[in-house]
Amino acid sequence: MAAPGTSESPGQSGSHSLGFDVLGRDAQTRARRGRLRTAHGTVETPAFMPVGTYGAVKAMAPWEIEDLGSEMILSNAYHLELRPGSRQIARLGGLHRFMGWNGSILTDSGGFQIFSLKSLRKVDESGVEFKSHVDGSRHQFRPEDVIEVQENLGVDVAMVLDECVAGDASEAEVAEALARTTRWAKRARAARSRTDQHVFAIVQGGLNLRLREQSAAELADLGFDGYAVGGLSVGEDRQATYEVANHTVGLLPEERPRYLMGVGTPEELVQYTAMGFDLFDCVLPTRNARNGMAFTSEGRLTIKNATHREDTAPLDPSCSCPCCGRFTRAYLRHLFVTNEMLAARALTTHNLHFYLNRMSRLRTALDEGRFAQEAASFLIATGGLETRAPEAGGS
Amino acid sequence: MAAPGTSESPGQSGSHSLGFDVLGRDAQTRARRGRLRTAHGTVETPAFMPVGTYGAVKAMAPWEIEDLGSEMILSNAYHLELRPGSRQIARLGGLHRFMGWNGSILTDSGGFQIFSLKSLRKVDESGVEFKSHVDGSRHQFRPEDVIEVQENLGVDVAMVLDECVAGDASEAEVAEALARTTRWAKRARAARSRTDQHVFAIVQGGLNLRLREQSAAELADLGFDGYAVGGLSVGEDRQATYEVANHTVGLLPEERPRYLMGVGTPEELVQYTAMGFDLFDCVLPTRNARNGMAFTSEGRLTIKNATHREDTAPLDPSCSCPCCGRFTRAYLRHLFVTNEMLAARALTTHNLHFYLNRMSRLRTALDEGRFAQEAASFLIATGGLETRAPEAGGS
Repeated sequence: MAAPGTSESPGQSGSHSLGFDVLGRDAQTRARRGRLRTAHGTVETPAFMPVGTYGAVKAMAPWEIEDLGSEMILSNAYHLELRPGSRQIARLGGLHRFMGWNGSILTDSGGFQIFSLKSLRKVDESGVEFKSHVDGSRHQFRPEDVIEVQENLGVDVAMVLDECVAGDASEAEVAEALARTTRWAKRARAARSRTDQHVFAIVQGGLNLRLREQSAAELADLGFDGYAVGGLSVGEDRQATYEVANHTVGLLPEERPRYLMGVGTPEELVQYTAMGFDLFDCVLPTRNARNGMAFTSEGRLTIKNATHREDTAPLDPSCSCPCCGRFTRAYLRHLFVTNEMLAARALTTHNLHFYLNRMSRLRTALDEGRFAQEAASFLIATGGLETRAPEAGGS
Repeated sequence: MAAPGTSESPGQSGSHSLGFDVLGRDAQTRARRGRLRTAHGTVETPAFMPVGTYGAVKAMAPWEIEDLGSEMILSNAYHLELRPGSRQIARLGGLHRFMGWNGSILTDSGGFQIFSLKSLRKVDESGVEFKSHVDGSRHQFRPEDVIEVQENLGVDVAMVLDECVAGDASEAEVAEALARTTRWAKRARAARSRTDQHVFAIVQGGLNLRLREQSAAELADLGFDGYAVGGLSVGEDRQATYEVANHTVGLLPEERPRYLMGVGTPEELVQYTAMGFDLFDCVLPTRNARNGMAFTSEGRLTIKNATHREDTAPLDPSCSCPCCGRFTRAYLRHLFVTNEMLAARALTTHNLHFYLNRMSRLRTALDEGRFAQEAASFLIATGGLETRAPEAGGS
């Protein structure tokens, strides 16, 4: 491991001691061990953030997320602004208090969700206008509004508003959206008023490596507390994701946290950690759980399969989660078949434990100078055969 | 309090020490404090049993039911025989092991559910034939089969198969069903092979007090480990329920546990405990929770009401449950409006805590010779204004 480096975020008061420390670097890969300091504590990285789009990780109680060892969850500014509204949450004491979660929170700005609305939205230089998917009401999100929303929420990490383009956009369209994303990021940065909140910029540029370089350079020049790579893991070929992420990560400021948005499978977490990313989020462990799919040390398992009808094994014999400590596959299959909520609860608990435990093991391996061996053991255990599920994108 | 009485169940081996002890009697009402001894421990009575029809209390994990202090839950032999099948559960080690619940279990025979199928069933002296509501497959439940199913499940209390009649049945029809229920109870009794299981008979007779007397006398003559009052709380007028239950409870053997099936509201639990019943079950706390209704010390609360939009109070300020310790009404309303599973979880936890805590307080009051005062305080607190919700029947 190389010598640790420390950076303070710009514009933060010393009392909060916000920042990001690179605690060490792997000798064989670009993986690094870090610590994000927020107003609600520290987040040991590399870290996976469970997704709680509407202010709750689906099927889970906040004390269970704590028990699983998660230090930061992801929520969504767009969805919370529509329901119940960020000003209302502010009046109720902020998002942490609202949802009874004492750890750190990162909110996605909702750019991805707004641009997914297609016919419901109109974009120009000032920002984006859209109709609520809930009640049809009209809303305007300018870059400044999105910062205000996240300041109302009082989250630990706010994401800037970025312009997302469709996968089949032309190079000119991608370039134009990238340039606007930079201008919006600059406006977002100027709109900041809280000193207890990190703001991360989002690198765009589609699958074009030159445009990714341009985006990363422009955003790094502006100076943000962290940098995310966006616009990936939205349906493109997995190899393309890998190549763009691999090229882009090296363009991001070394001393800031690097966040790969919307990724990924358990194997991808290992690969992208090795690449040098620090933060991840994905709906796979939670959404797939509700669809009856479990991640295990032996690969994926579909609980409704008839083979589990009289299977007295736990989901994963080498797992220490509450679900595996109490329930057999036969019972979980019965719960799933009879539509019992406990099926979703148990599988979500297990899958999040699987993800969070994997990240914890990667951090320990980094601390102990054996990251490459640990990473290899994960990739060998599942034969590297897992492919991206089609439902991986979005939130 | 009067001197305690103890009874051993017939045909039980000493090693299990199954039985029911009347620990004390209230001086002012017919309420009694008891203890049901089962193969899985003791159940302090009067007790409310959370309903877990398919082998899971909806929205809850078994460790949460334990934490709430419940010692016995109710499940349903009919539903478990259809899915996944009692023989399969037997091969998997019995219902307790299957569902990861170490406390006691009572199963309803499913008579009520089968007779609710109406066009799907055919009844004669041998038993009842019906088509599964799940897949249309044909099944026969004779009184002996229902004992076998519950012995396969390995539950602590099995209920006999009873013939249920519609609310508008003639006196002749009610009398005929009652007589058959007695004959079936005799056959069920003869079919028993396990000595580690209580079997309770079910008194029928509709709203006719003379027929209730006949049913109670015939079943008491046969000799069962406990007696339930069935065919009530199925849509009839609340006053009628009260009068029939009040008349019937005095006809049941004093030294055996008395179970009032499908009852009731929190007020009814108090009233029927005062009447001398020992066991209760009802879907109200769990089903109403999923519909957004909470029972509180100040009365009922509908969480989706706009008045709770910015309400920072817990569901019940005087409640010590995990939900009230962490969540505001404003957050619970948001969870309910956005269809988050956590809404059902939190309200179910709270409502079950409310029911179980109330029974615990009644037991303590009985122990301390102040039952009447405690009962009165409950009934006064809510003004006795609560009426039965239409969804109270069934499971």
